[in-house]
Amino acid sequence: MKRIITLLTDFGTSDYFVAAMKGVILVRNPEVTLVDITHEIKPQDVRAGGFTLSCCYHDFPSGTIHLAVIDPGVGSERRAILVESHHYFFVGPDNGLFSFVFDRDSHACARHVTKSGYFQPHRSTTFHGRDVFAPVAACLSLGVPPEKFGALINDPVRLEVSDVQMSVDGAIHGSIVHIDHFGNCVTSFQWEKLKERLNGRRVRLQIGKTEITDLVPNYVVGSSTLPFLIIGSAGLIEISVRNGSAARLVGAAVGDRVVLVPG
Amino acid sequence: MKRIITLLTDFGTSDYFVAAMKGVILVRNPEVTLVDITHEIKPQDVRAGGFTLSCCYHDFPSGTIHLAVIDPGVGSERRAILVESHHYFFVGPDNGLFSFVFDRDSHACARHVTKSGYFQPHRSTTFHGRDVFAPVAACLSLGVPPEKFGALINDPVRLEVSDVQMSVDGAIHGSIVHIDHFGNCVTSFQWEKLKERLNGRRVRLQIGKTEITDLVPNYVVGSSTLPFLIIGSAGLIEISVRNGSAARLVGAAVGDRVVLVPG
Amino acid sequence: MKRIITLLTDFGTSDYFVAAMKGVILVRNPEVTLVDITHEIKPQDVRAGGFTLSCCYHDFPSGTIHLAVIDPGVGSERRAILVESHHYFFVGPDNGLFSFVFDRDSHACARHVTKSGYFQPHRSTTFHGRDVFAPVAACLSLGVPPEKFGALINDPVRLEVSDVQMSVDGAIHGSIVHIDHFGNCVTSFQWEKLKERLNGRRVRLQIGKTEITDLVPNYVVGSSTLPFLIIGSAGLIEISVRNGSAARLVGAAVGDRVVLVPG
Repeated sequence: MKRIITLLTDFGTSDYFVAAMKGVILVRNPEVTLVDITHEIKPQDVRAGGFTLSCCYHDFPSGTIHLAVIDPGVGSERRAILVESHHYFFVGPDNGLFSFVFDRDSHACARHVTKSGYFQPHRSTTFHGRDVFAPVAACLSLGVPPEKFGALINDPVRLEVSDVQMSVDGAIHGSIVHIDHFGNCVTSFQWEKLKERLNGRRVRLQIGKTEITDLVPNYVVGSSTLPFLIIGSAGLIEISVRNGSAARLVGAAVGDRVVLVPG
Repeated sequence: MKRIITLLTDFGTSDYFVAAMKGVILVRNPEVTLVDITHEIKPQDVRAGGFTLSCCYHDFPSGTIHLAVIDPGVGSERRAILVESHHYFFVGPDNGLFSFVFDRDSHACARHVTKSGYFQPHRSTTFHGRDVFAPVAACLSLGVPPEKFGALINDPVRLEVSDVQMSVDGAIHGSIVHIDHFGNCVTSFQWEKLKERLNGRRVRLQIGKTEITDLVPNYVVGSSTLPFLIIGSAGLIEISVRNGSAARLVGAAVGDRVVLVPG
Repeated sequence: MKRIITLLTDFGTSDYFVAAMKGVILVRNPEVTLVDITHEIKPQDVRAGGFTLSCCYHDFPSGTIHLAVIDPGVGSERRAILVESHHYFFVGPDNGLFSFVFDRDSHACARHVTKSGYFQPHRSTTFHGRDVFAPVAACLSLGVPPEKFGALINDPVRLEVSDVQMSVDGAIHGSIVHIDHFGNCVTSFQWEKLKERLNGRRVRLQIGKTEITDLVPNYVVGSSTLPFLIIGSAGLIEISVRNGSAARLVGAAVGDRVVLVPG
């Protein structure tokens, strides 16, 4: 059966880990299409993995299975889960990795994956990506119905995914949620939601001692020496600089507080 | 339809960017074979991307679509183009990325991709890789004829791709065009063209204060402490050292001038 | 014919090298499934490449062709070989890269690949990955029988793969054979073999001036400040620390000696 399984992990690409998962999948379903999202999530950074997944899972065909393994609790009592949203499946550890999915799709439901008959016969305590999650994703791609893997649960671990607070003075408080490969600093401010609130007024964004007022339509008209704001490809406001790293320019890091002042 | 789309970008592999492009392609053509060339071109380095593409595009099956996105002008007025060479298609921004293709194939022609019906319904101003180029490449892989995407143009942006100048004294001037993963320094000198000119004479290559006279048939007979010359796999003369980084050894960087003195 | 070819090299992913190999394969067999194991083996580190391959080759479907190119001797007289084990094929240079395969499967046999009709028409002296090994793997994936590529040999290069020595005092001497992406230090001690010898006794592992006595069942119950021992996913004893890099914590490097004292 021609299905897609994507892979997102914190395994890096220098070890055999990702290949072992793919081998295990291909033994069960040689026809599957495998697509790497990334394997460079910072080790154990569940939130960062969830964020990156949330930016692209919906770009894949309906029915795609997203296999995500950032799993500091591997081998412990943390549950393995299978999440079904409107169009997609998600397989991975129950540690908040799919919080963004639940946030977007209120009908998404989770199952505790317990049917060990779908796992690898020999199960390590350090690599459930290979021994539990990959075989489950593979069986799912073969058409095994979700209910076969375990019962529904109503308490999957959920992290707070939104970081936007309104002050009485009208300021909007948020944070840097991601810094991308180019050094663009992605904020927690969703442009679509903010736009209504701004109602045509200009914005001013503060990060540390830096104040940014330019909101540009594309990189080319932006400055190559001063930071500017731009609506990024995930629909979030980003701090950028043309042909350079805004993170380096403004000295920003993930988690830094930002304040948006309309008017 | 079973077609190949290769991807070359400066996106890195730690974000969701490459996966988003692949998702968009697979939605349109689930049967396509996707092959990464590299995503580690230095940010905004159009010339480096064009060079790397030029070293391998011809190794792929006839009909392969090469999707290349190094796109500092995204969201501006720079054109999207579709290039047809004798055996291949190329999709990407019109900024010189395909200069090496035009240099090799004088019959290659370019179209300005304007038919927005092939693009993603919602188009960002920061990620045309996902919103414009990937869907165009996908539609092309489904058999949509090139002329459907837009009209022919005769002025695609072309960079100067050859850096070889002859002095009156017989010296040949060029530069380091690439430093590879191993530290080999790739020069702009094509061996096949040079060979005739040398007509059996020995060569001496100068880079900074270093002079290199050894041209070896393979790495094993080369020195592990002194730099030597070798004909690299792209047909260009390279500066190498056995089991080490020649770039570190001679202190070379991309753009450094080199002089070849025959005799 | 639907077959899998995996690729393991020291080429990195920033050049065109891996893509060129894949293009060459796809020209011959467009139906093949390509899976990267890793391309980040340290340049010329044949032993490290062999080790990584040994940790996952058996996770792939029977009939998989493992194409491995760590090839400091490219262009010299070193042989190209094709190894057949019980379930898998291996193609690469004869420099010890497949020592772990021979160690595991005493029936594995090797052929000297000499039939140049299977190679690329033009063969460089610096890139046999593209010009020799990739086309041979592709032809093999099309069903060309192994004996067509060359004669059996009984002297393929083999490295010593096991590093475990017993002292008269009962101590077991070994080394760090790999440090993974997370900083886990993989020792040469296979748990299954050691378990019998220990016969229920506790262990104490010495590395430099550090002594480690905790053998934990999973990361969660391990310390986040002191190193502990754990059975890794390759069945070897590893030195780890919870949510951190044990290599950094204990200052370990590949090749460091370790001593295991039972009792």
